Amino acid sequence: MATIIDGNKTSASIRQEIKEKVQSITERGGKIPHLAAILVGTDGASETYVNLKVKDCEQVGFKSTLKRFDDTISEEELLAEVEAINNDPDIDGLIVQLPIPDHISVQKVTDRIRPEKDVDGFHPINVGRMAKSLPAYISATPYGIMQLIERYKIETSGKHCVVIGRSDIVGSPMSILLSRKAYPGNCTVTLCHSRTKNIKEMTLQADIVIAALGSPEFLTGDMVKEGAVVIDVGTTRVPDPSKKSGFTLKGDVNYEKVAPKCSYITPVPGGVGPMTRASLLMNTLLAAEKAIYR
Amino acid sequence: MATIIDGNKTSASIRQEIKEKVQSITERGGKIPHLAAILVGTDGASETYVNLKVKDCEQVGFKSTLKRFDDTISEEELLAEVEAINNDPDIDGLIVQLPIPDHISVQKVTDRIRPEKDVDGFHPINVGRMAKSLPAYISATPYGIMQLIERYKIETSGKHCVVIGRSDIVGSPMSILLSRKAYPGNCTVTLCHSRTKNIKEMTLQADIVIAALGSPEFLTGDMVKEGAVVIDVGTTRVPDPSKKSGFTLKGDVNYEKVAPKCSYITPVPGGVGPMTRASLLMNTLLAAEKAIYR
Repeated sequence: MATIIDGNKTSASIRQEIKEKVQSITERGGKIPHLAAILVGTDGASETYVNLKVKDCEQVGFKSTLKRFDDTISEEELLAEVEAINNDPDIDGLIVQLPIPDHISVQKVTDRIRPEKDVDGFHPINVGRMAKSLPAYISATPYGIMQLIERYKIETSGKHCVVIGRSDIVGSPMSILLSRKAYPGNCTVTLCHSRTKNIKEMTLQADIVIAALGSPEFLTGDMVKEGAVVIDVGTTRVPDPSKKSGFTLKGDVNYEKVAPKCSYITPVPGGVGPMTRASLLMNTLLAAEKAIYR
Repeated sequence: MATIIDGNKTSASIRQEIKEKVQSITERGGKIPHLAAILVGTDGASETYVNLKVKDCEQVGFKSTLKRFDDTISEEELLAEVEAINNDPDIDGLIVQLPIPDHISVQKVTDRIRPEKDVDGFHPINVGRMAKSLPAYISATPYGIMQLIERYKIETSGKHCVVIGRSDIVGSPMSILLSRKAYPGNCTVTLCHSRTKNIKEMTLQADIVIAALGSPEFLTGDMVKEGAVVIDVGTTRVPDPSKKSGFTLKGDVNYEKVAPKCSYITPVPGGVGPMTRASLLMNTLLAAEKAIYR
């Protein structure tokens, strides 16, 4: 029987650990970690995400600052706001909730955030430091997956890991992280994507599969070998009239068919998802501790 | 019969193209590309390499500046020299010849070079931009390999590429470059290394093998499939009393046994090797043209 990797429980443990650290910082009169978030416009989903992140900060005892701007804000003005936060010594970490309006360049905004405060890990310096195995902020989803692997003590050295999907935010960094000389890591990694011709042939060889392509139930039972570790990063909303919300969240894995063959598997929801917000808290703590950039 | 990929010829074509570009820049009274190189100490091999790079500049019509320092120079002094070159508007590109003495941090020096002048492509920003598929200086060996693939019009999309070796300067960037959505690229990439258990099983599946582990004649005839493309990055000096120099240069591929099975193969010497110096010239031209950072 597969061990079900419980992202809710793991995420809760991490929050508890962070909360205790903040308490001990407070007791010794240290500086409380402080996250700033920028939200542009009134997109409902973005608003929900940012509010959850702010609530997370409260829950663990971080300070937080939410800066909201109309979607009419100019690129120049937004860059100036980023700059102001860069220069605010009380703020340790800064995130800009995406998407932002089309008239503002995401790349320019990302590049403007000081790497030392880039707790989303999107700045090219942090990506490059990660690739060079230097200390770096790892972005939320990959960091969350690494935590799950580590906390479930899953063996990775010498294992063949097949990553499906080459996105900047999940697949590509996962392929880099798992091939590094470290734990978790030291995997032989195969990165598959839309141009891969024989995905099934690849996944059947995998000791570890990271499914991050965003295609509901793509990974079927006949695509994995007995005893594989399966990490499901997919979260696609599929219409479902029987649900009050009107949709069901589907992963990239056909859980029912795949789970019986696995040694470990993450469910959707409740697997990788809950870890991403915990990752942001971990990165903010690292920023406050100046653990990445000294 | 395998097509032998001729690095000498390709490198000569690139130099010729650059030379013509410099001539046209000169004719229209533009700024001549200018490479600065820093050499610390008196290591014989380093001296040879730097001198060749300076000679390359002369040959294509670039300006070059060689700054030599005693190996007693302090880290602080060297960083100040880097800073001075960063601020010199006439200098487009800067390389620091490695190795440098142990009392100076390679990472600090690399990080201090302005990304815009980092024609070796070692700065984390350039590595990160490469990983994010943004314009970036690609370091010499990977860039040279990409040029060979492109100029020999080798199909890469949907091909399975197995990279052996995960070094920061070859294996790891090659795995990133060949999986990007671009040409050359769009490969399914497997990155193998010292912890990989079944290298032969992997290489036998490969349409393209990049051997970059530094182990003479590691890749044998029984490890490649018929029609494979084999890129040999190895250059190990093996003692050979019959040679005047006392050594023979050996690649990571057993050429004699592997070549008959290949569609394309790079010899050693004369394959990837000659391309690295051409790459530096290409990057210096890109720097002068402000093609990467605008």
